[in-house]
Amino acid sequence: MDHGALTFTRDVERGPARLGTLRTAHGSVRTPAFVVVATQASVKGVSAEAAARAGTQLLFANTYHLYLRPGAEVVARHGGLHRFMNWRGPILTDSGGFQVFSLGASIEHGVGKVASIFPGERSAPRLAGGGSRVRISDQGVRFKSHIDGSLHDFSPEISVAVQRALGADMVLAFDECTSPLHDEAYTRASMERTHRWAERSLAAFEGSSPRHGYPQALFGVVQGGAFRELREASAAAIGAMPFDGIAIGGNLGATLSDMYAVLDWTIPRLPAGRPRHLLGIGDVPSILEAVERGIDTFDCVAPTRNARNGAAFVRRGDEGERVPGFRINLRNARFVDDVRPLEAGCDCDTCRSYSRAYLRHLFKANEQLGQQLTTVHNLRFMARLMSDVRDSLERDEFAAFKAELLAGG
Amino acid sequence: MDHGALTFTRDVERGPARLGTLRTAHGSVRTPAFVVVATQASVKGVSAEAAARAGTQLLFANTYHLYLRPGAEVVARHGGLHRFMNWRGPILTDSGGFQVFSLGASIEHGVGKVASIFPGERSAPRLAGGGSRVRISDQGVRFKSHIDGSLHDFSPEISVAVQRALGADMVLAFDECTSPLHDEAYTRASMERTHRWAERSLAAFEGSSPRHGYPQALFGVVQGGAFRELREASAAAIGAMPFDGIAIGGNLGATLSDMYAVLDWTIPRLPAGRPRHLLGIGDVPSILEAVERGIDTFDCVAPTRNARNGAAFVRRGDEGERVPGFRINLRNARFVDDVRPLEAGCDCDTCRSYSRAYLRHLFKANEQLGQQLTTVHNLRFMARLMSDVRDSLERDEFAAFKAELLAGG
Repeated sequence: MDHGALTFTRDVERGPARLGTLRTAHGSVRTPAFVVVATQASVKGVSAEAAARAGTQLLFANTYHLYLRPGAEVVARHGGLHRFMNWRGPILTDSGGFQVFSLGASIEHGVGKVASIFPGERSAPRLAGGGSRVRISDQGVRFKSHIDGSLHDFSPEISVAVQRALGADMVLAFDECTSPLHDEAYTRASMERTHRWAERSLAAFEGSSPRHGYPQALFGVVQGGAFRELREASAAAIGAMPFDGIAIGGNLGATLSDMYAVLDWTIPRLPAGRPRHLLGIGDVPSILEAVERGIDTFDCVAPTRNARNGAAFVRRGDEGERVPGFRINLRNARFVDDVRPLEAGCDCDTCRSYSRAYLRHLFKANEQLGQQLTTVHNLRFMARLMSDVRDSLERDEFAAFKAELLAGG
Repeated sequence: MDHGALTFTRDVERGPARLGTLRTAHGSVRTPAFVVVATQASVKGVSAEAAARAGTQLLFANTYHLYLRPGAEVVARHGGLHRFMNWRGPILTDSGGFQVFSLGASIEHGVGKVASIFPGERSAPRLAGGGSRVRISDQGVRFKSHIDGSLHDFSPEISVAVQRALGADMVLAFDECTSPLHDEAYTRASMERTHRWAERSLAAFEGSSPRHGYPQALFGVVQGGAFRELREASAAAIGAMPFDGIAIGGNLGATLSDMYAVLDWTIPRLPAGRPRHLLGIGDVPSILEAVERGIDTFDCVAPTRNARNGAAFVRRGDEGERVPGFRINLRNARFVDDVRPLEAGCDCDTCRSYSRAYLRHLFKANEQLGQQLTTVHNLRFMARLMSDVRDSLERDEFAAFKAELLAGG
C-alpha cells in the first residue's frame, strides 16, 4: 500500500496459472514460489544465509510470536526483521490473528491448526486445569500469552503497528480464523468481522508510515471456511478492497478435494493482477493443484519440521518408484551403510558432501547437525520443485510435469 | 609411524615454548593449536565446513563412540572419517581407553572426567540398579556399551585396528586412565600396564597398514597421575619409544597448579623434536601456562559445550574489564536489546552478522540456531586466541601477551 512497495507482473499465463515476478524493496521473487517459515525470526535449524544458499527467495515470520518475544521494538531497534535475522531478501509477516486464536487461546477443536473462538463478547470456556481463554469482540481480541500467561490485546490497528515495527515487505490484514467445527452461521459472522477488520487494517496502514526507510505492502485475507457462498462473498469483498495482494486463509476443509474446491470458488473472484498467497499449505500435490488454479506463493513448516524429525524429501525412490509423502526416514536401518547422497542429482550443500549413512548416524547419535543438514536439503528440494514448476510453465509443459511427479514411477 | 605420516618442525623456540608446524597427509597445522572436539564425527552444533571457516585446523574424534556407533566399518566404507564427516584437514582420534573406563564402566569416582577401574582381574562392583561393569586385565578391557549394554572387548590391538579403519591422521596408543582417588600403588601398576600396552600398540601399528591410501601417525600416552615419580618415569618410558608424538593424559591433579606441576615433571623428559598434545584441557589460563611449558596442541569440549549452554567467549568486557571464565551468558536480561556483536573486533561469521539481542532471543525461544551461531563464535575465539599465541611467540612477546590476557582490565 505504501507507494512503490510492491509490483507484481504476470510474465506468462497458462490458463489460470501464472509465471510472475514480485518486486519488493528487498529484491524480486519469481513466482510460483515457496515461502520458508521463520516463525520466531529463525528458519528452524539453519541460518538465513544457509536458507538463501538453498535457493529460498522469501521468508514468512509470525507477528504474534515476535510481538511476545523478543518484542517488536527490539526488532525495530535493529532496523527491522531483515537486519535482526540477517536476511537480505523479502519477508512476509502474518497478522497475528491465526496464532492469537490457536496459541493464545490454547483451546482447540482438535481439527488441525485451527482454534476455537467464540462469537460476540462471550469468552471461551475455562479448560480443566488450564484457564486459558481468548475474548473476541468487534473491537479486537484479548488473549493470554502462551509463554507466560500474560494478557494482551490485539486489533487491526495494533497488528498494523506491530508489523510496521517488524518491517516485513509484505504484511497481512488482521483476520479471524475459523475451524471446521464452526457452523455456517458462525463462520459467516466471523467472515463479516474479518471484512470489517480488513477495512480498519487498510485505514490503519494508510494512516501510518514505514519505520525503516523502505515501503511495505498490505495483503488482505479471504476467509469463509469451507462454505461456497461465504468463500465467494469473501473473495469478492476482499478482492474489491485496495490491497496489494490477497492471502487465502482459514479452514480449507477436511480433504485435499475440499481445499481445491475452496480455491475454485475463490480464485476466479480475485483481481487477476494481484499476487495470491495460500496460507499454511506446502505438500507437493497441493502446490501443483494450487499453481494450476492460479496461486502464486505458499508457506508451510513441512520442509523444516520434517527435517527435524529425520525425514528427507525426495521426488522418487532409488529405483524410480513413487515414495509415499515424497520423503524417506533417515532413521531407517536400511540407510546404515548407504554411502549415497540423500537424493540423486540434488545440488544442495548436503547432498554434495554427505552420505545417507552419515546423516542417519547423526540422527541416531542425537547430533543436531543431522537436523541442520537435512533442513538444507529439504529447503533445496522446495526451491528446486518451484524452479521446475516455473520452467514447466514457461515451456507450457506444466500438465506433463505435474502428471509425471504425481504418477507412479 | 607410517612412512612420512607426520613431520613436526620447531620453527621458533622461546625457552620451552615452541612455534611449530605439523605436516600430515591432510595438510599442515601451525602450532600451538587448539583441536576442536568432534566426538561422534560431528562438531556439536556446526558442520565441519563451518568449523573450518572459523579457523579450526584440526579435529579430535572418539574411537570408543565411533566403534559403537555407527561402527568403524561404516566409516571405513566412506574412505575414512574425513570423507564421512566432510572434513579436509587433519584428524586425531583417541584410543578409546578413556571412554571405555568412563562411559563403558558407568561407575565414577565422582572426580571430574575420570572413571573407576580396578586392578588385575577383579571386576568392578555391580551398581545398584545398574549392573554396568568394566573388567580389566593385562590382555585388555571388557566393557558394556553405554548405548545398549552390549559387551565389547578392547585391547591395544583392537584399538589400533579400529583406528586404522577410522583413518585419522594421528592415532593414540591404548592406555588405562586413572582417577585422582587411586592411590600411588594402583596408579603405578596402571602406568606400567599402559607402558606394556604402548609397546603392543606400537607392534600392532607397525604390523598393520593404512586402509585409506594415506599414512597415519601414532602417539604414545604418558600417564602416572599426580605423582611426580610416576610422571617422570612415564615420560621417560613413553618418550623412549618410537612414537611420532606424545600425548599427556590421565589424572592431572585437583587444581591448575597441580596440572602445571605435572607438566613441569613431564615435559623436560620428552624428546624435544616430537609434538606434544595435552588431552582434554582448553581453558584460557591452562592453555597459556601449557604453551609456556612446551605443549603444542590441546583438545577440549569447552567451546562447543559452552556455546550450547548460551555462553559466548570474550577476552574482555565492554569496558575492558576482566570477565570471569572469559565468557558471557547470553540468557542474561541485560542483552535483551543489545544490538552489538558478541565480541567487539571479532571477525567470525556470527559477529559480522548478528547482535547479542538476536542471539539472546534465539536462546530464549529455544531456536537451535542460537547454539549454532554461538558455537561458530567460540570456535573462532579459540582459533584467534591460538593465532595470537603464535604471533606473540614469533615476535617474542608471549610473556606480555599472557600477562595482559590474564590480568585485570
